[in-house]
Parts: sequence; C-alpha cells; structure tokens
Amino acid sequence: MQIGLVGLGKMGYQLTLNLLRNNHQVVAYDVEPELVESVRKEGALPANSLEELIRKLHNKRVIWLMVPAGKIVDQVLENITPHLSAGDIIIDGGNSNFKMSIERAARLEQRGIDFLDCGTSGGISGALKGACTMVGGGKSAFEYCEAIFKDISVENGYLYCGPSGSGHFVKMVHNGIEYGMMQAIAEGFEVLEKSAFDLDLEAVAKVWNHGSVVRSWLMELTEQAFHKDAKLEQIKGIMHSSGEGKWTVESALELNVPTPVIALSLMMRYRSLQEDTFTGKVVAALRNEFGGHKVEKTKGE
Amino acid sequence: MQIGLVGLGKMGYQLTLNLLRNNHQVVAYDVEPELVESVRKEGALPANSLEELIRKLHNKRVIWLMVPAGKIVDQVLENITPHLSAGDIIIDGGNSNFKMSIERAARLEQRGIDFLDCGTSGGISGALKGACTMVGGGKSAFEYCEAIFKDISVENGYLYCGPSGSGHFVKMVHNGIEYGMMQAIAEGFEVLEKSAFDLDLEAVAKVWNHGSVVRSWLMELTEQAFHKDAKLEQIKGIMHSSGEGKWTVESALELNVPTPVIALSLMMRYRSLQEDTFTGKVVAALRNEFGGHKVEKTKGE
Amino acid sequence: MQIGLVGLGKMGYQLTLNLLRNNHQVVAYDVEPELVESVRKEGALPANSLEELIRKLHNKRVIWLMVPAGKIVDQVLENITPHLSAGDIIIDGGNSNFKMSIERAARLEQRGIDFLDCGTSGGISGALKGACTMVGGGKSAFEYCEAIFKDISVENGYLYCGPSGSGHFVKMVHNGIEYGMMQAIAEGFEVLEKSAFDLDLEAVAKVWNHGSVVRSWLMELTEQAFHKDAKLEQIKGIMHSSGEGKWTVESALELNVPTPVIALSLMMRYRSLQEDTFTGKVVAALRNEFGGHKVEKTKGE
Amino acid sequence: MQIGLVGLGKMGYQLTLNLLRNNHQVVAYDVEPELVESVRKEGALPANSLEELIRKLHNKRVIWLMVPAGKIVDQVLENITPHLSAGDIIIDGGNSNFKMSIERAARLEQRGIDFLDCGTSGGISGALKGACTMVGGGKSAFEYCEAIFKDISVENGYLYCGPSGSGHFVKMVHNGIEYGMMQAIAEGFEVLEKSAFDLDLEAVAKVWNHGSVVRSWLMELTEQAFHKDAKLEQIKGIMHSSGEGKWTVESALELNVPTPVIALSLMMRYRSLQEDTFTGKVVAALRNEFGGHKVEKTKGE
Repeated sequence: MQIGLVGLGKMGYQLTLNLLRNNHQVVAYDVEPELVESVRKEGALPANSLEELIRKLHNKRVIWLMVPAGKIVDQVLENITPHLSAGDIIIDGGNSNFKMSIERAARLEQRGIDFLDCGTSGGISGALKGACTMVGGGKSAFEYCEAIFKDISVENGYLYCGPSGSGHFVKMVHNGIEYGMMQAIAEGFEVLEKSAFDLDLEAVAKVWNHGSVVRSWLMELTEQAFHKDAKLEQIKGIMHSSGEGKWTVESALELNVPTPVIALSLMMRYRSLQEDTFTGKVVAALRNEFGGHKVEKTKGE
Repeated sequence: MQIGLVGLGKMGYQLTLNLLRNNHQVVAYDVEPELVESVRKEGALPANSLEELIRKLHNKRVIWLMVPAGKIVDQVLENITPHLSAGDIIIDGGNSNFKMSIERAARLEQRGIDFLDCGTSGGISGALKGACTMVGGGKSAFEYCEAIFKDISVENGYLYCGPSGSGHFVKMVHNGIEYGMMQAIAEGFEVLEKSAFDLDLEAVAKVWNHGSVVRSWLMELTEQAFHKDAKLEQIKGIMHSSGEGKWTVESALELNVPTPVIALSLMMRYRSLQEDTFTGKVVAALRNEFGGHKVEKTKGE
Repeated sequence: MQIGLVGLGKMGYQLTLNLLRNNHQVVAYDVEPELVESVRKEGALPANSLEELIRKLHNKRVIWLMVPAGKIVDQVLENITPHLSAGDIIIDGGNSNFKMSIERAARLEQRGIDFLDCGTSGGISGALKGACTMVGGGKSAFEYCEAIFKDISVENGYLYCGPSGSGHFVKMVHNGIEYGMMQAIAEGFEVLEKSAFDLDLEAVAKVWNHGSVVRSWLMELTEQAFHKDAKLEQIKGIMHSSGEGKWTVESALELNVPTPVIALSLMMRYRSLQEDTFTGKVVAALRNEFGGHKVEKTKGE
Repeated sequence: MQIGLVGLGKMGYQLTLNLLRNNHQVVAYDVEPELVESVRKEGALPANSLEELIRKLHNKRVIWLMVPAGKIVDQVLENITPHLSAGDIIIDGGNSNFKMSIERAARLEQRGIDFLDCGTSGGISGALKGACTMVGGGKSAFEYCEAIFKDISVENGYLYCGPSGSGHFVKMVHNGIEYGMMQAIAEGFEVLEKSAFDLDLEAVAKVWNHGSVVRSWLMELTEQAFHKDAKLEQIKGIMHSSGEGKWTVESALELNVPTPVIALSLMMRYRSLQEDTFTGKVVAALRNEFGGHKVEKTKGE
C-alpha cells in the first residue's frame, strides 16, 4: 500500500524502514529535513512539507502519525485536515491519551475522515523488526489498513480492539502493567544487590530467563543491561515516565479499580526525580518536635 | 547418576519422571505408598521407608528432598541423618526459607554431610520438561551433582548462586518478583475488564504475547486462562500465598530496601482472604461518627 | 448579617442553626419544604423557591450554597445567576472540586458576581457548634463576609487561603490527609484485633487520647465508636468515599508528588466496595496455570 | 514510692524530674556521671553503679529501665539480675520489641522477679509533664506500681493492657499508626507546597488545628515546625526510624493483616535514606534497553 508517514523520530524512522522492507510505498515527512533525507536513501518518497506529503498521496490517503503525544498531534491534524478528502484515513501510532483519540476521531468524522488510534509496543527494535499493534476506530477503516498492521507487526502481533480510543486504551494499560513489572523486577534486584550474598546479577537474570516463572522480554533486557554494566554503576536511578502510567492510574480511579502496584510504580518514579522531598522534611521536623530526634540540616542554610 | 527422591507430590512426581527420562537412577519414597507405586511403574526403584531409601543408595548418596517447606523438612532430616555417612549430599529442592537452609547446612556440616539448597522454578510443567534451578551450598557438592541440575533444567537453566542459603534466597526473590508481576498483570486486566470498552481479554493477552514489551510466560498463562474461561467467571479471586513473598518483604525490611510493589502484591493477597475487614469497620465507623455517613449493617446483628 | 442559605441537608441544617445562634438573619431554601419549615421554627426566614430567596435578600446579597458537589451546584448557579446583581456574593460551602470552583468564579466574575469557595470541615457537630472554614476567592468579598466565617467557626478556625479555588483545594488536601490518618488508625486497630493479646480496643483508644503522640479528634471518635460497639460487630467494613481523596491523588499525579499513603487509603476504600475482584481471579488463575494450585470456584457456575 | 531509674537520656531525664515532682524517691544511674549529677541537683539520689543503685533500694525494689532498645536492655538485665531478690520488679519503659519482652519476662519469672513492659508515648515533653503509658505483665506487679504509672501519666493516660508483651505491643502499633499519620500529613503538605497556590503552610496547619477533622497533636507540632521555618528550608527530608514501624509491619505480615499505609510509610522512610537507588537504576536501564530512552549518567564513571 501507499502510506504517508509524519514523524521520523526514533520510532517513526524504524517504522518507515519496516514498511519499506514490507514493500509498502512510504511518503515521509519530518520537521527535520535530514531525517527526510535519510529515509529517502532507504527508498521512501521525501516530502518537504505536510502539504507536499498530502499531494504525493493518491486518493483514499492513509497517513500515519508518529509524533509526540499531546499538542503536536493536534497541530498536525489542524495543518493537514483542510487538505484531506472524505474517505482518507489517519492513523495515530503514538502514545496519545485515549480520551483525546476519541475526541479527535469524533472531530474528524464530521469531515468524513477516519481516525484510527494505534498503540504500538515493542520498543525501537519492534518498530523495525516487528511491533505489537493495538488498533481502535472504525472497523472498515481498520480493514482497509489491515495489511499495514499485519506487515509491521510480528505474527499474531496486531489486534483490532474496538471503537475509537480502544487501541490507545489497551496500549495505555499495557504500559501500566509494564510499569508494575519493571518495578517488581527492579525491587527484586535491589534486594539481591543489598543482600549479604555476593550474587552475579547478570547470571541470575540469565538463569531466570531459562525456565523460570518470571521469564520475559523485560528479564532478557535486564540480563542485557547487567551484561553491559554488572552493577549499573554508570546509570543514575532516575525513572522518567511519559504519561501512560499516570493515565492508567487515573482511569483506575475513575473506574474505582484498586491498582496499588501500578500506582506505586508510578509514584516511585516521581520520587526518583526528587533529590529531597518536602514530605521527608515534614516527617523529620515532626520527629524532632515530639522526640527531639536530630534533623539533618541542609547545607549553607 | 543415582539419586534418592523423597516426596512425590505435584513437583516431586514430575521431577522423578524428568530424572528418569534423563537416564538417572531414582530411588523414590513418599508417605503415600500409591505415589511410590506409580513412579515404580515409570522406572523408579521403590522405597517403602526412608531407611530403605538410604539402604538402596550406594555410597556418596545424593538425596533430593521435595517436601513442603517448614517442619517437614526438619523431620525428614532428623529421620535420615543418623543413617547417612560423611560425604553424602542432601538437596532441598523445595521452597524453604533461606535462613533455615543456612542453619540446616551448618548443622549437617558437623556430621560431614553436604546440604545444597536448590530453588526450583518453572511450575509443574517445568519440573517435568525442564526447570530453572538456583543452587546454594558447598561448591564441590554442587559440582558433584551438577549433571543432575543440568539435566533436569532447560538449557542454561541452572545456576550455582554461592554459599548455603543463596539458592533459596535467589528463589525467594524470584517469587517476590513473580508476585509483583502477577499483581501488575492482574490489575491491568481489571482496568480493561471494568472499562467501557467491550474488550476480548484473551485476544488482548494474545496480542501482548506477540511483540509487546510485556510479553512473558506469565502473559502466556494469562492468555491460556482466558482461553479456558473468557471472563474467569468460575474462579474466585482468592489469592493464597506460600511464604516466599512474605520472606522477600521481611528481607527487604531487614536490608532497609523499599519494595512497595512486592509488599503491596502480598498485602492484596492477604486482603483477598478476608470477606470483611476490621480496617474497613473502623473507617466506616469514623465516617459515621464525624459525618453522619450511614454505615452498612452486618446481617443478623 | 443577612445570608441566604440554599441546601438544608445534614450540614446545611446545622449551619443554619449555627448562624441563627450567632444572630445572623438566615433566609433558607431547600427542595424539601419540610426542611424549610423546620428551620423556620428555629428562626430562619423561609423561602419556597430560589427566586423567593433572592427576593427576600436585600442588596449586596450573600448566598451560601450547601448542596451536593457536582452538577447540582451548577444547576443552582444557573437558576439564581439571572436574578442576581453585580456585587452579590455566592459562597460554595460544599465539597466542590477546586477546578470547578475556579471555573465558576471566572464565569460569575463576568457578571460582577463574587464567588467564594469555602471548604468546611468538622463534620456535623462542627457545622453546628463551630466549624473549620478555608476560604478562597476575592479578598474584598472575603472581607465583606468575614464575620460569617468567624462566627460559624471555632476560634482561629477560619482562614483566607488565597484566590479562587484555594479554599476548596486546601479542604481537598485536608480530606486526603484525613483518608490517610483514618486508614493508618484502622490498620493499627486491625493488627491489635487480630493479635494473640485480648485487648480492650476502647481502652486502648482512650489511653492513646491521653498524652500519646497519636492523640487526635479521629482517635477520640475511634474511642466513641468502640464505646458503642466494642468489636464493631454491627458495622460492615465498606468504606465509601466522596471525591476529595480521589482529587487529591489526581492533583498529586499532576504535580508529580508521590503520595503513596493517600493513594493507598483511597484504593483500599475502592477495594472494600468489591465482594470479589477481577485482579484476584487473574492471580488465582495464574497460580493454577503454573503451579497447579487449586482455585476456589464461584458458586453455581 | 521509691524507684530506681537506669538511663538518664532524653526520656529518662525528663521522667526522673516527673517522678520527683510527684514526690517519688528516685535512685538514679547512668553510664554518664554528669547526667547522674544533674538529677542529683534536682533531688534524686545518685548511684555510681548498678550495684549501688540496687543497694540503695529497699526491699521489693522497683527498677525502671529507660535505655535504648535491643542488646543494652539485656546487658543491664544480666548485670542487675544477680543482685535482685524474688519479688523485685523491673519495668522496661523503652521501645523494646514485644517478643523480647515476653522472653525477658519468662526468664526473670524463673528467679521470681516481675518484669513489666511499659510503652511510653508523648515524646520528651510527655515524659516530663505527663506521658501516656501502656503496661503489660503480671497484674499484681502492675498494681504494686500503679501509683507510678498514674503519677507520671496525664489523667487517664495509663493502661494495663494484659500479660507480658502487651504493653510494648500496644506501643508498637501506636508507633505504626504514628508513622502512617505523619506520612499522610506530610504528603498532604507536599501537595500544598507544590501547588500553584501560594499557601501559608503554617496558617493552614493552624486553621486545621481549630475545628477540622484532622486536628491532632501531630498537626499542632506541624504548625510549630512551620512557625519556626516557614518552608522547612533548613531541614533535610531524611526520615530515620527506630524499629516499631518495622515490627508493626512484621506483625501484620505474621497475622496476614494488610497494612498498606503503615508499610508504605516505613518504606518511604527507607527510601529517604537513599541518595540513589538500585531499583531506579534497573528501571532506567530497562527503559533505555527497549525504548532508547536516555539514561542519566553518574558522575566520574
């Protein structure tokens, strides 16, 4: 098929190669001209603007957005919508909030444009070699694009989840689970690392990847990480987050579903961004007030 | 090799078949004679008592215990130790507390008997087809038995972890991680199940097993479970636990390691065993006291 | 002062008595005529409709809303706003979401109407005998009404917090803390109740109210509750929640502040509303899949 | 009464003054002679050794230990026990583990010596002006000493909890609750502090102490702390802990009681002691492995 690809960052770039390898025709655009140039060398048709991208696509256009979630998606939509025709299909392959996707689909539907929300998992290597895609939106639009989802995903690695928003919703929950699994693995290795036993953490991760209950791709990546740096001495324990974990907890709160593990995984990430905490100051101050327990003073104050 | 196997329950039975398949000679004993009889039919040498088991083993005996953790291990040790000779090796393949294993190894060492603590993961199918084994204890005893560990485990699925206790310690932490991973997966599926989208949970688990970041054996088992019962309507959400999760949290507390996710996974299991909670009664009573919020009354009281 | 009071439920009723006792003139309205009649007997001027209430108030009207948070506040505002004049002041004394209060204040400001958001704590007894009030909104409007806040509150029990929304925000966080304190107290008493010691829980709560670090109004209420029902046998442990706890967690997530204790307090409330959990079903199913651990079956299925 | 007091630290010193003020005769000993001297000036009889202390006490001695929990208690007991007579009474007023108190009581009972475990709350000011005491042990020994407990406590501030260990158990749970309440308060203030509103935190704490649901001694101390340092800028958020919180969680685990709030309060304390975390390193490494998310490097490595 022919597909327009907007956004050639880490994920979009690999996805373009993936599509080309699967013999799809890709018209590619990014705000960075050198990224356009680099996929041109790989066989993509370059576009120097969104307008050019749209012009180069024949009718019943299929445009895949792989841009950062949030306002940029809306900006791109605002820029391209006036140039599109009824029947065209936009796929948002990024990590957008599913509620936004529902709104966007409704807005575009008024112009006869289909909007598919596609959660894409598998990381950078997956984007290149075979991802896991979860798609929401109109069934017929999905079916029109099914070959794309099939080709870019590993075998059995794509799913039509249901109406608009369901693709990004399923991806959101996937990431919530991912937060929990990562935190569980990480806590376990901290217990190992702090223990009196002098354990070879790479070897432990490796043996766990062979026959244990916790064998998983994340454990394989853990093994890889320890292989590169046996005690992770070069890495700071700062855990950033992008949004899906937070949205999973928000959804859970709205649904009255207790999700202590996912919530705590997220909160420990927030905690890791703080050098000192106000919470800690209050508790330290209180211990001092009632028990005379010494507080440690901040420097220079 | 020749090996004495004590305990032919779910795990011990499969392990016996595994050993036989790998051409080891197994002398098997269980308190249930019919279990001994059934492995006899598979090629094991039957023993009708622990004494007989010991008698049937030639010198430098290797005895694998696959009995429930706790007092039973000590009872078996008390019964067999007087009949053993210096140089014999006992392997505890169950889920014993690593501190107990350290004590037992020290006690047996006084009689010249080696004690290996072997954490065994992979569930029942693993015990049969290839487990993951984590071994602690004396290095030379381990090396003497290495062929056993190698044969019963999947490729690369065994590890000498270090001195006594380290095998059960690594297995304990494995289970702590397992608790966290399971709770994360389960919370995610509850969010999916409670959502407004009408999702096919088996299909979601399946697609996540193909290319996603959370692909794992536990997710494959999740897929299987939904395949058998699409909404798990026949299963009560009661989550038992055996001990390793609790010990992991206790170890974390001793090491001052924060393990919120593992701790909460355990506590949600405890919570699942309670029909009503005293905590809830107190909070409900307090809300009634200050805000006049109605409490729901227990029946018949 | 003269004050219009809309909403004569548990809190509004007591507040009316409080205002009357402090020699304010109250024009009172509720959708339930009998509630209007009952405060009439106590000295309030009755109003049979919102229009009548507005008519009976002289210029620079002060109207206190004590209605359930959410849509009802907006409905009342829609109904009364057309009849109000620039310079009038509306006080929302309920548990509204602070973001809504900011929006409402902005909307009313366009018509020259001041909107104060007032968090009211202290429960029903506080509403009658002396509350704790936290007020946000325009400073001059606050100062115009200051006598009201002063009179209905205990000494030093009112605070001008800042611009619109700040009053309800401070009250929201107050309730988040309250959730955490209540859960902490309740967990502690569950540990006491489950322990091998046969403790007199009322006596424990009582002694803690005399000189201990945890002495507090909530502990006094705990003592009262145990005085009425020594083991709370008549109360079901179902912990409802109204919204402020959830909003506190949502605000914390937005601010990237880790609030594990408040979040867990909320989630244990949600958990208490569930007889069985899907999370538990998934974990039980997984334990069955890998370990053959028996699941408990739901009845009749 | 006459009472021997061993340990004149922060708590023991104030307690001595408290006892003297209540017209008890105190024979005081501490390893630091200047502490003995300072209470001598206040009216206590000085003892330069444990032997002297015992000698100076008339028969049916009552000896109050106010020494750090753990091994020191056992050392003191070993030193004094040989010099004591049947019928003497030892009171451990420190924060000992209740299981140790049960053991110590059993050991001393064999020599006819009574051992009372007394949890003492109220902080330093309470030790001086009126504490809250929770006492376990033999009923008759308690009754013999009741005047002491009554006098050093605020009115209604002492309780005979039951057999040996129950006093320290009740105090342990008290501290567990205290951890939860403190963390709840502290989290709330961090949300306030991080919010867009420019709130006067001392004023908020103050208003909450007047009529609100969360009014409490801890909130009064919070107010005091903000009075001294409006943003706690001089205090580092390092939250030490002594043991009772950990023991409460351990007891909860043994009793299968879910205590998420107390557990998390403790774990956030542990987290506050860590500058960087291994958990964070693992999660950061994993995010890098699958998503190419940049890790922050530690310096100089």
